[in-house]
Amino acid sequence: MQIGMVGLGRMGGNMSERLRAAGHEVVGFDNDPAKSDVADLKALVDALAAPRAVWVMVPHGSPTTATVHALAELLSPGDVVIDGGNSRWTDDLEHANHLGDRGIGFVDVGVSGGVWGRTNGYALMVGGADPDVERLMPIFTALKPEGEFGFVHAGGVGAGHFTKMVHNGIEYGLMQAYAEGYELLAASDVVTDVPAVIKSWRKGTVIQSWLLDLLDRALEADDDLSELRGYAQDSGEGRWTVEAAINHAVPLPVITAALFARFGSRQDDSPAMKVIAALRNQFGGHAVTSAAGSVEKGADAPGADVTPPVG
Amino acid sequence: MQIGMVGLGRMGGNMSERLRAAGHEVVGFDNDPAKSDVADLKALVDALAAPRAVWVMVPHGSPTTATVHALAELLSPGDVVIDGGNSRWTDDLEHANHLGDRGIGFVDVGVSGGVWGRTNGYALMVGGADPDVERLMPIFTALKPEGEFGFVHAGGVGAGHFTKMVHNGIEYGLMQAYAEGYELLAASDVVTDVPAVIKSWRKGTVIQSWLLDLLDRALEADDDLSELRGYAQDSGEGRWTVEAAINHAVPLPVITAALFARFGSRQDDSPAMKVIAALRNQFGGHAVTSAAGSVEKGADAPGADVTPPVG
Amino acid sequence: MQIGMVGLGRMGGNMSERLRAAGHEVVGFDNDPAKSDVADLKALVDALAAPRAVWVMVPHGSPTTATVHALAELLSPGDVVIDGGNSRWTDDLEHANHLGDRGIGFVDVGVSGGVWGRTNGYALMVGGADPDVERLMPIFTALKPEGEFGFVHAGGVGAGHFTKMVHNGIEYGLMQAYAEGYELLAASDVVTDVPAVIKSWRKGTVIQSWLLDLLDRALEADDDLSELRGYAQDSGEGRWTVEAAINHAVPLPVITAALFARFGSRQDDSPAMKVIAALRNQFGGHAVTSAAGSVEKGADAPGADVTPPVG
Amino acid sequence: MQIGMVGLGRMGGNMSERLRAAGHEVVGFDNDPAKSDVADLKALVDALAAPRAVWVMVPHGSPTTATVHALAELLSPGDVVIDGGNSRWTDDLEHANHLGDRGIGFVDVGVSGGVWGRTNGYALMVGGADPDVERLMPIFTALKPEGEFGFVHAGGVGAGHFTKMVHNGIEYGLMQAYAEGYELLAASDVVTDVPAVIKSWRKGTVIQSWLLDLLDRALEADDDLSELRGYAQDSGEGRWTVEAAINHAVPLPVITAALFARFGSRQDDSPAMKVIAALRNQFGGHAVTSAAGSVEKGADAPGADVTPPVG
Repeated sequence: MQIGMVGLGRMGGNMSERLRAAGHEVVGFDNDPAKSDVADLKALVDALAAPRAVWVMVPHGSPTTATVHALAELLSPGDVVIDGGNSRWTDDLEHANHLGDRGIGFVDVGVSGGVWGRTNGYALMVGGADPDVERLMPIFTALKPEGEFGFVHAGGVGAGHFTKMVHNGIEYGLMQAYAEGYELLAASDVVTDVPAVIKSWRKGTVIQSWLLDLLDRALEADDDLSELRGYAQDSGEGRWTVEAAINHAVPLPVITAALFARFGSRQDDSPAMKVIAALRNQFGGHAVTSAAGSVEKGADAPGADVTPPVG
Repeated sequence: MQIGMVGLGRMGGNMSERLRAAGHEVVGFDNDPAKSDVADLKALVDALAAPRAVWVMVPHGSPTTATVHALAELLSPGDVVIDGGNSRWTDDLEHANHLGDRGIGFVDVGVSGGVWGRTNGYALMVGGADPDVERLMPIFTALKPEGEFGFVHAGGVGAGHFTKMVHNGIEYGLMQAYAEGYELLAASDVVTDVPAVIKSWRKGTVIQSWLLDLLDRALEADDDLSELRGYAQDSGEGRWTVEAAINHAVPLPVITAALFARFGSRQDDSPAMKVIAALRNQFGGHAVTSAAGSVEKGADAPGADVTPPVG
Repeated sequence: MQIGMVGLGRMGGNMSERLRAAGHEVVGFDNDPAKSDVADLKALVDALAAPRAVWVMVPHGSPTTATVHALAELLSPGDVVIDGGNSRWTDDLEHANHLGDRGIGFVDVGVSGGVWGRTNGYALMVGGADPDVERLMPIFTALKPEGEFGFVHAGGVGAGHFTKMVHNGIEYGLMQAYAEGYELLAASDVVTDVPAVIKSWRKGTVIQSWLLDLLDRALEADDDLSELRGYAQDSGEGRWTVEAAINHAVPLPVITAALFARFGSRQDDSPAMKVIAALRNQFGGHAVTSAAGSVEKGADAPGADVTPPVG
Repeated sequence: MQIGMVGLGRMGGNMSERLRAAGHEVVGFDNDPAKSDVADLKALVDALAAPRAVWVMVPHGSPTTATVHALAELLSPGDVVIDGGNSRWTDDLEHANHLGDRGIGFVDVGVSGGVWGRTNGYALMVGGADPDVERLMPIFTALKPEGEFGFVHAGGVGAGHFTKMVHNGIEYGLMQAYAEGYELLAASDVVTDVPAVIKSWRKGTVIQSWLLDLLDRALEADDDLSELRGYAQDSGEGRWTVEAAINHAVPLPVITAALFARFGSRQDDSPAMKVIAALRNQFGGHAVTSAAGSVEKGADAPGADVTPPVG
């Protein structure tokens, strides 16, 4: 079938190629004229026959909202917009309402697969009304991996991005579990070949996974990871996962700990731990490390401005 | 080659079969005469030609130590004992010393694979001296999965069980990450088919793994897990992992959170949360839930025995 | 000075009494005519001389917003509204803008002290413009505890409720720390008199605090807390604290763990732990506890629909 | 009464002075002759009339064990040894047995108060047999704070140090709760005077405590703690608390998180977070930060040695 693709970056570009390879007609638009098939969004809409399907693959937040709003003015009743970016699921509800007021359908799709997807297929997590999703099945079938897995119609509008968000939250927890195990192995005196341990775990163990395969691959290139700093960004979904859990009163200790570990990795120094150091110095006369690196003695006995510990 | 196997339960029995299928000669001993090839440990030792290899596959702690000590009296210099059970790695050092005083070698092997191992092979994590391990390679090769993965000589004595311990610690973290994601999906109003989501994740996603395959399998049998209680035992390795991390000053937030979640799952009521309820009642006059289930009003204003909050 | 008080529940009523005792004139309105000095909000405004000050002490969320919006229509430029309830600090910004469009000032006040405040004074955490706060100082002085502590002008609009929110977040962490210590003492075989330990800690220790005094008081009434269930509500500020931390990429492991412990305390069964039980059953043949309470054997070896752990 | 004091450092020295001020006779021994009343342990024992009481106040672990063993050879049946140091409670059981074989009693005392104790009294947490503890009550009464608090006979041998250990575990959690709240306040745009907030909390709030007083004091000296590094040691009791919790299957999320935060504060770089960075680079082509500080692009598509994410 025919589809418009807005955003031809690494994801949108590769997906377009996979769609074309499957026999679909893709009309692509990108702000970069060198990548674009048409001059602007209006030309993209004009190039498609009604009822149209336009897949939006641009950064989440303002860019996605701006694109959806622009399409709302250009498309016609019966058309459908697909948001395949990393939008927060709560944005989906607003976008669907905005389009719905004009008779335009909306489907949200969480897409996994990264740089691997073009060859292997993209795992798709889809939210939207049954008729909209059914109509788009040829597109989804072309994008998804072969076989019975890698596609789910998870529920109504928002369910796709909610599902992808939880997927990423789980991913945070899995990565941190491997990371902690690695650190403990590396700290051990008795284990002398940590990369060999990681490699061995790839088959026959309970913890075998694709992430473990990747860790082995990373260690093949840098066997003690000495070329990297322990600095990790987070991309939003982990935060949203924790926020969703708080809204539902669901305890999420592991996923949250993984998120906080990333926050901590980006701090040059920890204000919280300065407080710990200051308190230890106050009550125990424990030595502290000054910002300049020297070690100082504990405080003198405090004066009368502090409540004494006993009556 | 020839090997003695002590302990012919599910693990030892299956491993013996896999070894025999590979052409090795196994002499087995078990306390259950119906399973045993010989009458006692002495007969087992007598049935083997020196230099002997005896694989111990009995419960960790006292049973393993008792078996090792008994073998120390029966075996000869140049023989080797393999502990393939779930021993704590610190026990290995004691066992190796005890045997070493008599000229007997010791190799520790962490074994993964459970009920699947007989067919697919067992992942083996091995600790011990190079000559001992090299001599046993035919046995290891028969037990391990085919291919380049599933076997590691991780270091000296103790390294095998240390590695297996960390493997299980990681396993706790991975399982809890999936569990938390599942609970959040199940709490969501927007996701309407959680088992389908889990199934879809098995291919094309970053979080695909063998554990995820098993979760899908469990949900096929019981699609909301309503037949189960949220009650989880722990088998020791998770505790030892956290203790090893504490000894090495390695922060392990995710693995520890997973362990504590299991502890919590086994409590009918939480003493800690009783304290929280009691304190909320004291300072805020918040209603509490009595053990009998009724809701009571907060406390009256406290008497003079409590330090007033202001001077 | 003269002030209007909207909401004469436990907090607003007690605060009005403390203000009157200090010589201020309070005109109170409550939906309950028996408590109210005036018939409605319009009458309250009419009863005050310009420039007016109206303190809103109603539940946060819709009730507070509705009251602020109603006052916006009734008050005059130069008047000021104080929100002393438990509003989320982000609501303050909206309320201040709404009132500011009409020339009306806004001050937010986080109030601590609960049932103790009427006698001992209320700790006040204030956000707003300097002129507004200065004008209200007679009111704040009457409400706050005696001495140099218990009052802060923490910043502009929102700073008062933000500060109170963090106060409550810290409170969650403190309570959980005591609660965990209590549980460990109670689990010990060697400590035989836990209430006596708690009582002894009230003087001379590093952990002495008002919360500890309250815990001692609770144990005097119920020495093993057997009359309580370990069930704890949360009132919103803890959740907002974690959300604010996520927005600022601040790791908050202790406060978040305390919040999650409360979530967990309210679950009859844990969906996450059902997943753990299901997975243990799948891979290890571990026995599980069924919802009906019986213990069942592990699963049979899985069929061909599950990816085998080895190639 | 008469007592021997072994170890005249900051704690033992100050305690001796407090005891003497209360009219007790203290014979002190220290390796530093300038501090010592006697030449060696034998002279100390000889200087005391039977039945003797000897208080050991030396570093825990080997020094304490060596002192206890030396005293076991010098003392007589009916004498009693008090360990007032920071020993692990499990050491107490061994020491008590060793002394008990010779008819010598043993009492363990956890002592809190630090540099403040000489003036204000030391909180004492005592473990031991009733007759031993009763006999020492004059000493305890002189050391403890005035009033009904600050002393507990918590149980048999080990109960004193177990109680002190839990006290310190709670202390870790309390400190971290304040530290996290401080960091969040400091990160906020809306709160402009964090030290004033901390100061204000000292009265009228739920979170008032001695630790909060000390934090205020520290901020008076360094209002943004810029003179300190966020680096915090731990002294053993926190680790033992977590280990005891693991032995009793008690979940301890807050205290453990506080301990791990200290571990993390002492790492120049985190091996675990290197793994996170490496994995993000592998699967997503996310940029990483090299150890040299430059930012590099993600990996190319992986080769055939990694299990593809789809079939």
